[in-house]
Amino acid sequence: MANRSIVTLTTDFGISDHFVGTIKGVILEINPEAEIIDISHSVQAFDVLDGALAIAQAYSYFPASTVHLVVVDPGVGTTRRPIILSTERHHFVAPDNGVLSLIYGREERVHVRHVTAQHYFLQPISNTFHGRDIFAPVASYLSKGVDSEKFGDEITDYVKFNAPKPKPVDQQTMKGVVLKADRFGNLITNITPQDAPMLFGENPAPFKIVIGKHEITDVKTSYAEGEPGEVFAILNSMGYLEIAANRAPAAQIVGTAKGTEVSILLNGAVAAGNGK
Amino acid sequence: MANRSIVTLTTDFGISDHFVGTIKGVILEINPEAEIIDISHSVQAFDVLDGALAIAQAYSYFPASTVHLVVVDPGVGTTRRPIILSTERHHFVAPDNGVLSLIYGREERVHVRHVTAQHYFLQPISNTFHGRDIFAPVASYLSKGVDSEKFGDEITDYVKFNAPKPKPVDQQTMKGVVLKADRFGNLITNITPQDAPMLFGENPAPFKIVIGKHEITDVKTSYAEGEPGEVFAILNSMGYLEIAANRAPAAQIVGTAKGTEVSILLNGAVAAGNGK
Amino acid sequence: MANRSIVTLTTDFGISDHFVGTIKGVILEINPEAEIIDISHSVQAFDVLDGALAIAQAYSYFPASTVHLVVVDPGVGTTRRPIILSTERHHFVAPDNGVLSLIYGREERVHVRHVTAQHYFLQPISNTFHGRDIFAPVASYLSKGVDSEKFGDEITDYVKFNAPKPKPVDQQTMKGVVLKADRFGNLITNITPQDAPMLFGENPAPFKIVIGKHEITDVKTSYAEGEPGEVFAILNSMGYLEIAANRAPAAQIVGTAKGTEVSILLNGAVAAGNGK
Repeated sequence: MANRSIVTLTTDFGISDHFVGTIKGVILEINPEAEIIDISHSVQAFDVLDGALAIAQAYSYFPASTVHLVVVDPGVGTTRRPIILSTERHHFVAPDNGVLSLIYGREERVHVRHVTAQHYFLQPISNTFHGRDIFAPVASYLSKGVDSEKFGDEITDYVKFNAPKPKPVDQQTMKGVVLKADRFGNLITNITPQDAPMLFGENPAPFKIVIGKHEITDVKTSYAEGEPGEVFAILNSMGYLEIAANRAPAAQIVGTAKGTEVSILLNGAVAAGNGK
Repeated sequence: MANRSIVTLTTDFGISDHFVGTIKGVILEINPEAEIIDISHSVQAFDVLDGALAIAQAYSYFPASTVHLVVVDPGVGTTRRPIILSTERHHFVAPDNGVLSLIYGREERVHVRHVTAQHYFLQPISNTFHGRDIFAPVASYLSKGVDSEKFGDEITDYVKFNAPKPKPVDQQTMKGVVLKADRFGNLITNITPQDAPMLFGENPAPFKIVIGKHEITDVKTSYAEGEPGEVFAILNSMGYLEIAANRAPAAQIVGTAKGTEVSILLNGAVAAGNGK
Repeated sequence: MANRSIVTLTTDFGISDHFVGTIKGVILEINPEAEIIDISHSVQAFDVLDGALAIAQAYSYFPASTVHLVVVDPGVGTTRRPIILSTERHHFVAPDNGVLSLIYGREERVHVRHVTAQHYFLQPISNTFHGRDIFAPVASYLSKGVDSEKFGDEITDYVKFNAPKPKPVDQQTMKGVVLKADRFGNLITNITPQDAPMLFGENPAPFKIVIGKHEITDVKTSYAEGEPGEVFAILNSMGYLEIAANRAPAAQIVGTAKGTEVSILLNGAVAAGNGK
């Protein structure tokens, strides 16, 4: 590991308390050469899927040997296991609650270990802050070059959930969902070009995207193409269909947020919820 | 000082302005090798006690020789003194307004200096941003290895307040207070196991914790033990009694926040405020 | 470049998504030695002037050779150009939409290049996240020492707007505007001592500053001089006249924010909007 050792942080700790500062201190006390990079501390509190989305979007851009610390941990203090996930390029340290689910899906070769080597933990171990007492120390020792095998045995029964996928309703209708609204008010759906190739061709057949009471018939290629107040679809930088507006929050215009259903209707099909 | 020189930042500057960026620039211009770590910039504006709590929770986890910059400074531009507090392991740079009070209480040997060596300051010195003009440069020179004696003479009359302590009302009743609500809506009280050992024994005698209109009779050992909607007590990772809920914000359920009174009643005592 | 290579970030990406984490990963993958420093990610969404103000306040405090990445980019995916601005001490990487306007005004010698060397970009280039695909890679290669000439030809027709300046209405009246409210609720105007020297002399002639329904007749030299609830003027650390209060948010007391008109009236002139 010739590079500087990078440790990234993805948590639901927020930034208004001492939590983040404390885990940075723990990491640096063990490995003063660690380079700590915040990915996000604004994962929705207790929301494992939101955490899974955050780390999945960012991790692959980091250099080889990066250690990603991911702590969204409503089960802290229970028997849920601390784990290390190792891919060919990266290590991830997290609770075994599914927060790494999207990584398992994207990486071909993964090794998962149940972390049991307590001598790497900060003592005494609290029941309420394993980010400080277990996950941060393990991540820091990994960044220092301690071999992942030293932390515990490999397991295969780790927790993995599937991100919600869009579903075909009939030949002409598909239903997806809004995964989240981003900072700009863009509504990120779970629909990809693989799911709905008909939207992204050169001369697409007529279609409607229905979200709330809004009907969208246009997929644009840049935000700036939108007229003032217009809500449109766009393929975003993560590869998802996004409901957006030009210099304005689509979430507010459409009046919807995370969890809202998004329907794609082909050839004049009628949206179930809106039909008579 | 063989380690990298770490400078931590704890301020009430928020993150929506250029203030934090500016002081980072000042630190790096003086010591380009400084490793700057944000503890928090979300201390409540002008709230010296909130700043004292933030730095007190995080500082001890950092490596030896860390310099902690703590700027919550409503008296900027007045005669309140800039100071350096040195403990056996760390330096702290702050205004002398009590923001380091909880450090004085926790460290056995402290040396406090009134910083007067103006040639270390950024000129011209403004009256409104000593974080930039005085505290950041002093912290950076310290991180570079300048001896603390060079900055000014030792003083003993520094400002120190006592954090609010829980008070016994009678043999069966103790009153504490909520110090803050954290990001998860947990209500952190000022009550420790030393103050209320009767709550934390193996077979505690019956007790009630009264906060607002809620009565709590259970101290749990992990958040996940709570039933949905249940409010309970727990010993948190800072060593304080905390009013919490499982995957939900207790502050919202109880309808209270910082400053709320918390009573502990033993053996069926009746809460003063609620009694008839 | 003997110093560590510092890359600062000023964006409107917010901190609740993966955007910032992703661009940090891109920068570190290209230059693992880069030292990434957040200036602010809370520039108002799509607000180029707000971004221009943020970077203008902070950049000059950073060491020589710092690379400043500034991404407020509502025109992402259109033909607006990516540019590098080089001054004697720093590089800036940004979209050519005026977000560097205040830098052009403050630096004597500037060289601006249209970045066209696509082999430095991350492929494939999305239409929605040039921060990741274009600006971050270019900033990182610059921080690694790649000469700015390698990225594209020099241009002189870059986009530059003038920050709003205060205007004299007549001999006794000047009108300025609130540029922004800061985290403390201080209202930062666009009025400098050069614009209104009469406010800052030793024995100023009588004057009134009118904002909303408030009249201010006092310029103080420190926040702490203010009486509880009093709104006053002060010269702030950026060199602007600021409407402030002592340990309280003037923006809330006055009931105004960004964009509000501020009038200075000399010798008993009557405010136009309030007069009869």
